[in-house]
Amino acid sequence: MNNWILREDGFDVKKNLAYEGLFTQGSGYLHLRGSLEEHLSETPQNQTYMRNAGNVTVEVFKKLKAKWGAFIPGIYGKHPVFVSQLINLPWFAGISIEADGESLDMEKCSILNYSRILNLKNGELTRTFEWKTAKGVTLKISFTRFISSSRKKLCCQKVNISADKSCSLKISGGIDADVRTSGHDHFASVALDLKSANSVHCIVKSDIGDTVNILTQFSGVDAKWNYIAGEKNGELVSNFSLTPGKELCIEKRTALTTSRDLEKEDEAAILNSAVALSYSALLNESAQEWEKRWNCSDVQIDGDDNGQIALRASIYHLLRCHVPGDKRVTIDAKGYAGDAYFGHFFWDTEMYLLPFYLYTDPERAKTFTDFRIHALPAAMKYAEKMGYRGARFPWESDSNGDECCARGNWQYGDHEIHITGDVAYGIAHYAAALGNDGYLKKEAATLLVESARYWLDRIDWREGDNYPSILGVMGPDEYTPISNNNSYTNRMAALNLSLAAKFGKEGGATEKECAEFDRAAKLLPIPRISKTLVSQCEDFEKLADPQFDKLWKNRKKAFAAQVSQERLYRTRCSKQADVLMLMVLFPNEFTKDELQAAWDYYVPYCTHDSSLSPGAHALTALKLGLLDEAWKFWEATGGLDLDIDHGGAEQGIHIANCGSTWMVAVNGFGGLKSAMDTDTLTLNPVLPEKWKRLSFSLVWKGTKVKVDITKDAVSITNIDNNTILVEVFGKLQEIGPKSHQRFLQ
Amino acid sequence: MNNWILREDGFDVKKNLAYEGLFTQGSGYLHLRGSLEEHLSETPQNQTYMRNAGNVTVEVFKKLKAKWGAFIPGIYGKHPVFVSQLINLPWFAGISIEADGESLDMEKCSILNYSRILNLKNGELTRTFEWKTAKGVTLKISFTRFISSSRKKLCCQKVNISADKSCSLKISGGIDADVRTSGHDHFASVALDLKSANSVHCIVKSDIGDTVNILTQFSGVDAKWNYIAGEKNGELVSNFSLTPGKELCIEKRTALTTSRDLEKEDEAAILNSAVALSYSALLNESAQEWEKRWNCSDVQIDGDDNGQIALRASIYHLLRCHVPGDKRVTIDAKGYAGDAYFGHFFWDTEMYLLPFYLYTDPERAKTFTDFRIHALPAAMKYAEKMGYRGARFPWESDSNGDECCARGNWQYGDHEIHITGDVAYGIAHYAAALGNDGYLKKEAATLLVESARYWLDRIDWREGDNYPSILGVMGPDEYTPISNNNSYTNRMAALNLSLAAKFGKEGGATEKECAEFDRAAKLLPIPRISKTLVSQCEDFEKLADPQFDKLWKNRKKAFAAQVSQERLYRTRCSKQADVLMLMVLFPNEFTKDELQAAWDYYVPYCTHDSSLSPGAHALTALKLGLLDEAWKFWEATGGLDLDIDHGGAEQGIHIANCGSTWMVAVNGFGGLKSAMDTDTLTLNPVLPEKWKRLSFSLVWKGTKVKVDITKDAVSITNIDNNTILVEVFGKLQEIGPKSHQRFLQ
Repeated sequence: MNNWILREDGFDVKKNLAYEGLFTQGSGYLHLRGSLEEHLSETPQNQTYMRNAGNVTVEVFKKLKAKWGAFIPGIYGKHPVFVSQLINLPWFAGISIEADGESLDMEKCSILNYSRILNLKNGELTRTFEWKTAKGVTLKISFTRFISSSRKKLCCQKVNISADKSCSLKISGGIDADVRTSGHDHFASVALDLKSANSVHCIVKSDIGDTVNILTQFSGVDAKWNYIAGEKNGELVSNFSLTPGKELCIEKRTALTTSRDLEKEDEAAILNSAVALSYSALLNESAQEWEKRWNCSDVQIDGDDNGQIALRASIYHLLRCHVPGDKRVTIDAKGYAGDAYFGHFFWDTEMYLLPFYLYTDPERAKTFTDFRIHALPAAMKYAEKMGYRGARFPWESDSNGDECCARGNWQYGDHEIHITGDVAYGIAHYAAALGNDGYLKKEAATLLVESARYWLDRIDWREGDNYPSILGVMGPDEYTPISNNNSYTNRMAALNLSLAAKFGKEGGATEKECAEFDRAAKLLPIPRISKTLVSQCEDFEKLADPQFDKLWKNRKKAFAAQVSQERLYRTRCSKQADVLMLMVLFPNEFTKDELQAAWDYYVPYCTHDSSLSPGAHALTALKLGLLDEAWKFWEATGGLDLDIDHGGAEQGIHIANCGSTWMVAVNGFGGLKSAMDTDTLTLNPVLPEKWKRLSFSLVWKGTKVKVDITKDAVSITNIDNNTILVEVFGKLQEIGPKSHQRFLQ
Repeated sequence: MNNWILREDGFDVKKNLAYEGLFTQGSGYLHLRGSLEEHLSETPQNQTYMRNAGNVTVEVFKKLKAKWGAFIPGIYGKHPVFVSQLINLPWFAGISIEADGESLDMEKCSILNYSRILNLKNGELTRTFEWKTAKGVTLKISFTRFISSSRKKLCCQKVNISADKSCSLKISGGIDADVRTSGHDHFASVALDLKSANSVHCIVKSDIGDTVNILTQFSGVDAKWNYIAGEKNGELVSNFSLTPGKELCIEKRTALTTSRDLEKEDEAAILNSAVALSYSALLNESAQEWEKRWNCSDVQIDGDDNGQIALRASIYHLLRCHVPGDKRVTIDAKGYAGDAYFGHFFWDTEMYLLPFYLYTDPERAKTFTDFRIHALPAAMKYAEKMGYRGARFPWESDSNGDECCARGNWQYGDHEIHITGDVAYGIAHYAAALGNDGYLKKEAATLLVESARYWLDRIDWREGDNYPSILGVMGPDEYTPISNNNSYTNRMAALNLSLAAKFGKEGGATEKECAEFDRAAKLLPIPRISKTLVSQCEDFEKLADPQFDKLWKNRKKAFAAQVSQERLYRTRCSKQADVLMLMVLFPNEFTKDELQAAWDYYVPYCTHDSSLSPGAHALTALKLGLLDEAWKFWEATGGLDLDIDHGGAEQGIHIANCGSTWMVAVNGFGGLKSAMDTDTLTLNPVLPEKWKRLSFSLVWKGTKVKVDITKDAVSITNIDNNTILVEVFGKLQEIGPKSHQRFLQ
């Protein structure tokens, strides 16, 4: 087993959507689902329908066999229900093949020895198979493609065809702009034309006025291409005679640019600059970029192939998704690999994605926090609209920083206000991990003050209480929609307020304000059920018993899909870690007894209906020394998108879960403490039984180290130029530049 | 001042929508908004748009100058968001006039001495004005119309025109099926054709398959009509020469039938059967029907013209709306006079509409309770879908009894479950008012049992509690969306359960079940803040202060329109009476101290954002002897649809408020106790200072009486054939058949 390869053996149309999602390729700038080049003939991609607002957790998506997806972060269209959504761009990767008049179709043709592999190391997708035509010819076909990591607006494709008997071939391909996003047409205009003898040009204007230019070109073969213009698509078609022993190799290259690009380039210039380079030269160039990134990001597990591949797949998608240098966007909930969450940004970015970048490639992490600073004016407008001072961040953000939560899902948008505290947490985490308090005092200071002003105005001081309250909130557990003094939310608000109290002067706060921030931060309560048991919110125990035994009949499906929302909302069932998440994020503030009490109380009520849930549970289990439980949750975390049989990545990659998988490996089994909790690089690893070795790279406050963990020892290599203090198994030790230290358990 | 007349003096386009609603005419079977015959030229009625789900209380409706409305109860179309909505049918009342080439248009022409009156006594609408044309001709025009109360599918119209100088006229009119309902096109097909020389026929098929046939015919004049066929409309046009001293009188009659009709008739036969009768003969015939109904329904107030006309307008619309003999429909929230609430049925029907019919025309009341019995199978399916046994009635019902609450308004549909108890209350009220326990034992027994089964399954027995709870509900106060043990809901559920315990055997309940119903009914709690203060729900006092002084800047507008929904949901502000409504409905169960404590506590938090609120407050104030407060709320209740300056009936009649107005007059000032609270006809009237006399008819358990109240005495005349026991001012007295009794205060 090659632990760098995701593999599909044999074509099964029922699994097509899931592989499309899992095999998504991208450069940060551009993303492409792993859809078949020749498409499935009976799966139109231009169906218009109204996707209504619903709870995505239990949404039944329109059943399609295939769903094209081509996304450029930041290219949004407006939507009557979802405010805006990331646009599924014209499909440019199509290559159709006809042999002796028979169209290639995975569903209908006789296909043998089919396999498809995604090489995680260099991002190349390769599909090979044999096609036995009705006329008795056997063709060997391989499709390969990648989106260049060095030329981020360029997609390269190649198809190699050989046959055992002579046959006539018709190859066609171009650009199809007759596509929809969740059934919605976002193109105000579509212009298509033949650019040269072998290239098609397409300009679409979105319904908010952005322009996307696509130029696609066939090459690699001498051919005369005929242009066939449809209303919203344009195709080049050519005929070939194939003789045994000769391989036909055709390339298709596509460049995309948009009116939003920070770096203005011309799509023709992009193709021209690569014209002299072969497919493999371009692939090598791109692979070098991938290698640099894997060097600082890879995590190696010896002894657990499934775990290794799941983790590598997660890291692959994390590396793919990051949009370098563009603070106007961050990473959407489906990792630019599907339209399930409309391309919107949630708290996932701070809580589940940021850590991976912070500790492997901190400069990239900055785009996450810079994005929120970029979105501050929108957050201030939002606060004002909701009747508050300061800044209130949207639960579902687009690139403008506007609230995109559909009104029909108001319970999230209106009440899940912990997002504003999460944003502050993310900023503090960035500053801590980089050892850069200057960020808090300068770039982020205004955000900290304005968000604290929001909290101060959002707080109620109830008659008879000698403490402030945050009333009417939804915590991370989205099954308790309107609760008072949710512990997680209160703690996050308190963090936000205390940061503003500390750094507020630089952000324009008066001394009096800072004192008020400080006072509120100190007084916000963490409600309790008993002395050691933290309550998720006031009166959590007054909710009804969820009666799992009676009502949760199919444990493989979400509880929410089996009972009414009304029942979810009046019972103690929780969607995901809430109190446990609080304790994961603030480990120094709770005793082991409290952690154990929370585990004992909340785990039986947790449905794990959210993909964000198992990771937090694995981390908690490890803190409690519950290795079997930790292992169970690790397996649930890592395998999600690879679980093709259960839908996997059909609607996109669970990108937060990818971050969560990395955290369970590195913070969990690797035992790395967060920079929010300690200034010293601290490791207390516990390897699962079957793991022989765990090794990874880290950047700790600017110093790069390599960590190598075996059952009996931890080796840390300082590959940087300064000395670093580390703590392993409770032992403090300095490690000099380019030096190495071994710690025995 | 004629207290039978609603009057508009002078045309003001800004008031047009409100008058359209207020002047709605109808026969129960058919309803027509008071739109101008000639229409306003620049107000297209075929705009397609998506009306999204929003809170109707604060919904900003599409700003139109005019909104046609023609409704037949039961004719619904399907809608992607609202499930179904009452269809705005093709407009058949149009009559356009051109004089010397100039088109009549109230906005653009020179119009003098304009007035329009709706005669509440006979339902006729008359509009008269003078039109000074650009050519210097002055035309006197009067439009009259009514929907026949004796031939319920027939609409009769007449226009009389005379001029001071000769002029040429062009008259046209027909059927326009290019209309929308809330922007939505519900017609699967439209067929229009010339039926005869002077009639146009239209058949529309709705998107759920119902057929509506409309035949309209010009008459009353010798004319050659030309037919002009549009894509979705058909018009007859004719030219006339008008000479001074001669009046042109043209009639237009329209008959409508549908595939849903209980009584099958042919629209041509309907017109034919009336062809020999003049407009005034038909009007007289219809007026006689109106007279019969006013005889048993009118309430006379001496000394308060405003109050009298407001009350008469309310009764007019109540009489108009009732669909006789059809248990498949009841009365929608906008009284078939607008599309604001989609033609759906709410708890209004039981709580605000039923009493008027019960005590004035009990046979008509039966359609309300029969409708719910008709809807029982749908309620059982709904319960099953939500995961419960028994029957759960929908918050927003259409004629199928299906839940039509948009998913985006899930807080109402999912949590406002008191509706099921309200249905049981309505049935019990019907049985009590008619003295007909047989209804509970027979027709309604299954409904009582199935709804009680739902409650039993919906109840939670929380650990540590020795009583059952109903968790996660919205009470009548829709600003506390998910609360535990709402007092009103619990009491209604208990009533439902106790009725099932008593009559359940006949409805299929086992003895054990009946015992369970009884136990739950007895144990459901009414939470309290203190010994005398009933709490709206558990922990109501833990909600935040609504800060009205700071936030409710414009008291003429709803509080909800000035703050975010999120704020509404975490504060003690209430939309309408909740605990007070409980006490109005169960007066024997609360002491005067408790009522006073509730008044003192809740009134300051009430925004009266619901039109259902002032009536309940007026009734409570009267019980507490707060005459000034009662008067204030009486004025707020009665004047709502007549308050043209504040929008009035723009989006339809506040029909529940009409019922509420009657209740404040009869149950409030008239002091009539509900049959739910006493077996004896009991009156304890208190007239407001300016009222000299209040008189009305009543039916009490089958016996008809007339009540005449002055400042110092109450006279009751038994106009029936049996003896009745009455209690007035605490004095019990029998009154024999056709006898009369006077009670001094």
